[in-house]
Amino acid sequence: MEYSYSEKIANLKPSAIREIFKSLSDPTIISFSGGNPSPLSFPTEEMAKISADIYAKSADTALQYSVTEGYPPLREALRTRLKSKFGIGGEEDDTIVVSGGTQGIELACKILCNEGDVVVCEDPTFIGALNAFRSNGARVAGVPAEGEGIDTDALEAVLSHEPRAKMLYLIPTFHNPMGTTMSEEKRHRVYDICRRHGVIIFEDNPYGELRFAGEDIPNIKSFDTEGIVIYCSTFSKILSAGMRVGYVTAPKDIIQKMVVAKQVEDVHTNIFFQMVTYRYMTEYDLDAHIADIRALYRHKAGLMLSELDHHMPECVSFTRPEGGLFIWVTLPDGLDSSSVVSAALERKVAVVPGTAFNCDVTAPSSSFRLNYSMPSDEEIVTGISRLSDAVKECI
Amino acid sequence: MEYSYSEKIANLKPSAIREIFKSLSDPTIISFSGGNPSPLSFPTEEMAKISADIYAKSADTALQYSVTEGYPPLREALRTRLKSKFGIGGEEDDTIVVSGGTQGIELACKILCNEGDVVVCEDPTFIGALNAFRSNGARVAGVPAEGEGIDTDALEAVLSHEPRAKMLYLIPTFHNPMGTTMSEEKRHRVYDICRRHGVIIFEDNPYGELRFAGEDIPNIKSFDTEGIVIYCSTFSKILSAGMRVGYVTAPKDIIQKMVVAKQVEDVHTNIFFQMVTYRYMTEYDLDAHIADIRALYRHKAGLMLSELDHHMPECVSFTRPEGGLFIWVTLPDGLDSSSVVSAALERKVAVVPGTAFNCDVTAPSSSFRLNYSMPSDEEIVTGISRLSDAVKECI
Repeated sequence: MEYSYSEKIANLKPSAIREIFKSLSDPTIISFSGGNPSPLSFPTEEMAKISADIYAKSADTALQYSVTEGYPPLREALRTRLKSKFGIGGEEDDTIVVSGGTQGIELACKILCNEGDVVVCEDPTFIGALNAFRSNGARVAGVPAEGEGIDTDALEAVLSHEPRAKMLYLIPTFHNPMGTTMSEEKRHRVYDICRRHGVIIFEDNPYGELRFAGEDIPNIKSFDTEGIVIYCSTFSKILSAGMRVGYVTAPKDIIQKMVVAKQVEDVHTNIFFQMVTYRYMTEYDLDAHIADIRALYRHKAGLMLSELDHHMPECVSFTRPEGGLFIWVTLPDGLDSSSVVSAALERKVAVVPGTAFNCDVTAPSSSFRLNYSMPSDEEIVTGISRLSDAVKECI
Repeated sequence: MEYSYSEKIANLKPSAIREIFKSLSDPTIISFSGGNPSPLSFPTEEMAKISADIYAKSADTALQYSVTEGYPPLREALRTRLKSKFGIGGEEDDTIVVSGGTQGIELACKILCNEGDVVVCEDPTFIGALNAFRSNGARVAGVPAEGEGIDTDALEAVLSHEPRAKMLYLIPTFHNPMGTTMSEEKRHRVYDICRRHGVIIFEDNPYGELRFAGEDIPNIKSFDTEGIVIYCSTFSKILSAGMRVGYVTAPKDIIQKMVVAKQVEDVHTNIFFQMVTYRYMTEYDLDAHIADIRALYRHKAGLMLSELDHHMPECVSFTRPEGGLFIWVTLPDGLDSSSVVSAALERKVAVVPGTAFNCDVTAPSSSFRLNYSMPSDEEIVTGISRLSDAVKECI
């Protein structure tokens, strides 16, 4: 039989990153291409203890169907933590547990966008978000991203000319793929622009807790007096990515619609690991654990940056992240990065070409993304040296 | 701010069943309204042992990001079991792990249906499926369900007049909500009709392993020579519902599209419990465990049926399931069941009104659904007596 697919799915390509991830079975390749947290960031022993106790005392709850909104004690612990640490969440907000941050992104688009509606994004941005929007039949409009965050003049122009714009998708802190952070002043400007245009802001913050340098900058949600910000984060980078536990805080009305949409996607998020997460948050020192992860990434990012400083030609530029998982390298003179990506792979180093993150899938890119959370110190040293050779060969 | 939602979500109501589930905090209410497996069906001790071992030996894999298709050893074990036990899955098929059967249903609709396309369903049917279709902007067309399965003349008529019909959603074995099973002869007739009209069959089989009487009937997928059947099942009723592990077997091309669509919903299903499931399947006797569950439900269904025989007025009819979780009770003379549902709740017995399962949300129903997997023997005896009093009061 010839299968005919929905238009929104027919042209969707699998994420280049996950495809690269699958092809990395060759153990001789040094991979800077992942987005995985270091396994050292998993508090395995503590999670094992909690899990054993859940089996012993609460198995009937942990293995049974549960409510779509999420495990009530976890939602309460999240509300408390978000409020006290980040000033996020008021009387008018609610919190839903989702199966990883990606589900939060996808649900927001599903409840807000009819087919043909527009989601405005920083360009480049997280490929998973772009495909989540496309999978719901939404159109993507890119606005150039700069070192300090999205180009606000261009944003104003896009929103003025695009009446079907429903949502602005942002990663303000430790951007994926660029590693950059939006300034506080720009966050306020973006908020004002969206408020005036009646556009919802989706603030995706999977890396915000991983700051290893500089000062915290308030999340946009923390000054959301108008109820226009959907805030999304996850435990993927601070407890475990494999368990798929994230959360969204947004106005109650929006959360209610997300509950209805989530109910028909997976009924609820794995309840056992919601309970594990809750107990880790309340019985162990999550902040101390996060401090350990920050120290680890401070070291790894520092090492990779110093190797880049040492080996890369001066005409090549790269971001200097203060947190998160990524460095963004840009070739001079708008040179296409695809030849470097290929030359690096020949030298057994994998990086992600910038094209993977473009809003326009056909546009070229002179950049590529490096990850420093997964490789060992030795791999960072060897890999950056090889990568620099590949760059020198191509420019 | 006034929020404006997508049309497909704006009118979607939360599932009546899950709302009832949430309202069942009153411990004096006897609930026949759930769809939960008995907690006695969870092999808690074995799962605890496996989990401890995974933390000790494979934590880096179990807590890390994984591939969207599912844990490869689990997919292989599923292929082997489906082939050897049910004759399901050929060279041209593939298997994806999903986050519960509901995700399989939702993904199938998402990849096949543009907004306005039609999914044909047995009427009544599983509310979660109906809402999954609506949440993707698909229209639902109901075909009357009979004791032996869907009315094939009506099905033929609907498909002849509905060029946008893309998929037929069926629960052929131990139907939810009716508890009935489609005859082998009718399965073949339905397959032929869909083949002729180029319509994909979604065979949802969450309860198929729970047969406690009668003889197995071949799944439609087992005679799918044309590659038109998507087969979906789950571990929710035989290991744990809370872990959210299900699977779909379908032609490779369809599975590839489901992978792309799943990637942007939740990246992958909780990998820890995929590993638990795989190890339970290969290190313990899953079939012996299922035999225990069958014996438990044979007893509970038998008890509920004998109490219904004993207490219900003769004019009230009910199905006599050979497996699964549900009995479907129908009042005489097309009497609306809503008054019985209310009268039962006043007597502290909760059942689900038939209207919850109607393809047309405004249509009345003279039926209601009973669940026997969750209540204790004593609750079954007391509850059916009270329910019968409520029925007698209303007819």
